[in-house]
Amino acid sequence: MAALTPQTPLGPSLSKPSSRSASTSSARTAVRRDFSTGHRWLSINTATVRVQWPLDRIIDECAARGIRAISPWRDQVRAVGLDRVAAHLRDTGLELSGYCRGGMFPGVDAQARRAALDDNRRAVDEAKTLNAACLVLVVGSLPGALAGAPAHKDIAAARGDVRDGIAATLEYARAAGMPLAIEPLHPMYAADRACVNTLEQALDLCDALDPQRSGALGVAVDVYHVWWDPKLEAQIARAGRERLLAFHVCDWLVPTRDLLNDRGMMGDGVIDIPRIRSWVEAAGFTGYSEVEIFSAGNWWRRDGGEVLDTCIARHRSAV
Amino acid sequence: MAALTPQTPLGPSLSKPSSRSASTSSARTAVRRDFSTGHRWLSINTATVRVQWPLDRIIDECAARGIRAISPWRDQVRAVGLDRVAAHLRDTGLELSGYCRGGMFPGVDAQARRAALDDNRRAVDEAKTLNAACLVLVVGSLPGALAGAPAHKDIAAARGDVRDGIAATLEYARAAGMPLAIEPLHPMYAADRACVNTLEQALDLCDALDPQRSGALGVAVDVYHVWWDPKLEAQIARAGRERLLAFHVCDWLVPTRDLLNDRGMMGDGVIDIPRIRSWVEAAGFTGYSEVEIFSAGNWWRRDGGEVLDTCIARHRSAV
Repeated sequence: MAALTPQTPLGPSLSKPSSRSASTSSARTAVRRDFSTGHRWLSINTATVRVQWPLDRIIDECAARGIRAISPWRDQVRAVGLDRVAAHLRDTGLELSGYCRGGMFPGVDAQARRAALDDNRRAVDEAKTLNAACLVLVVGSLPGALAGAPAHKDIAAARGDVRDGIAATLEYARAAGMPLAIEPLHPMYAADRACVNTLEQALDLCDALDPQRSGALGVAVDVYHVWWDPKLEAQIARAGRERLLAFHVCDWLVPTRDLLNDRGMMGDGVIDIPRIRSWVEAAGFTGYSEVEIFSAGNWWRRDGGEVLDTCIARHRSAV
Repeated sequence: MAALTPQTPLGPSLSKPSSRSASTSSARTAVRRDFSTGHRWLSINTATVRVQWPLDRIIDECAARGIRAISPWRDQVRAVGLDRVAAHLRDTGLELSGYCRGGMFPGVDAQARRAALDDNRRAVDEAKTLNAACLVLVVGSLPGALAGAPAHKDIAAARGDVRDGIAATLEYARAAGMPLAIEPLHPMYAADRACVNTLEQALDLCDALDPQRSGALGVAVDVYHVWWDPKLEAQIARAGRERLLAFHVCDWLVPTRDLLNDRGMMGDGVIDIPRIRSWVEAAGFTGYSEVEIFSAGNWWRRDGGEVLDTCIARHRSAV
């Protein structure tokens, strides 16, 4: 099957660590759940096939393949209708490993920041209606930067807005019973998408806003964003079960041709995903492994069924 | 003074988001040298006009504009000839704020790693011949990744190679009297160019290999690579005068259209360069501010004289 052919000389089979780290690696992999025999713990972030299908078709195609969970985006839900999606999920038995997304807290003025809080409360309500495991927060950064017109250069101020925004949303989400998962984004998105850029920074926020580790606030660990971090293993251990609310996978391609939409299928890049998963599971995480691939040049151009089948195969062989 | 105050885990502005950065910012800018009236402390990394001119022309054009320092690349020096470049520098009185570059330590096997060490010793010798302030190290990462064919996925092993490689090179460089400046690269280069990706990580290496803070080992702080880091101010303070061997500037554009060659001219992007320079100078740095811009779509297409004149103007207004 063409789709399963590795795109780089480095295929999914290349998980052999160098001799220098073999012993620690095998000690760690021992705690991993065995994904090789099935895809019980596979979730599909619906952006992965967003170009091919609307959400109702994605739900059907996932259910038909025995996929047990998805993580949809708000615009995809809106296009089909919230209540219709909720009913469709009940009918098919699919769970939500997360809901994408809240956040984008910084604003040029108080009015813009209030509007963001309103919108985040609506996102919490939608996540609740869909019975999501958590609402994922992409926190935002310099106001206007995403549109190419940053209002200022003060990333410390944006970080202040983010802290205030999460604090306000947490109050609402806690009452609604919807956990918030801060997703640290790769530093290459620090200007326009998220000014929370390391797991350590996200956990510092969690400790400040939810010191009791109540489960109401945690993190979404996406290997694409954090794989490079020399402190990753230690920070995953620090996060622990109460803070690890979601685990996302894809791969980092060499070369990467676009900052946003050139993510790789698991096994086609350089991220040692099994090792990172072993750390996450050693810390107590027992949830889904959610595939989230933005790929304008490759996977978004293929048949959606081929993409899902490849996700299932790579979930077994490369996650 | 504010710049020397240790950060809380969340950073100073997060604990006081409403007053934001106004007060701390003005306190910090007070320690900056005044660049507005001249370009005594401007250095040009010669990659900035590498497409337009060979190195001997670059030296003449810089000297003609009263620019006092450059930082050339090895291939540019080789194209003209080492001794000829050395003589040309003596004739014009130009200094070297740094020499680009050593590093690329990881290799597929012991032979490859030995070859890298040989090459780094040659780089030290060349830097010495040219009387450079330091040899900049871009340390490398997964062997083969830069050519699109990574030999393995073990970034921890690559980091081990880097530590060993710097340790070996440091012995030679110390004897030669040539300081080594580890340049932490942006995490988007973690796979193929450098597995040292934060200033904290670079300083941990310095502390391990040169605990006496002898001046033989330090860091090159390039705002492009580190501007996003929530721990930047604290780590710059930690580095101190002995470890701050070079300061590089350019800007982060929104959007950034290419991972390597879409750097912006100072003032055209979102990096608060004056603030970062105030931190660096508060820590004791008194050297050159070196402009290093890779720009396939813009600055490399312009007349070299226009580029240098713009660097001079922006050095005064935006650095």
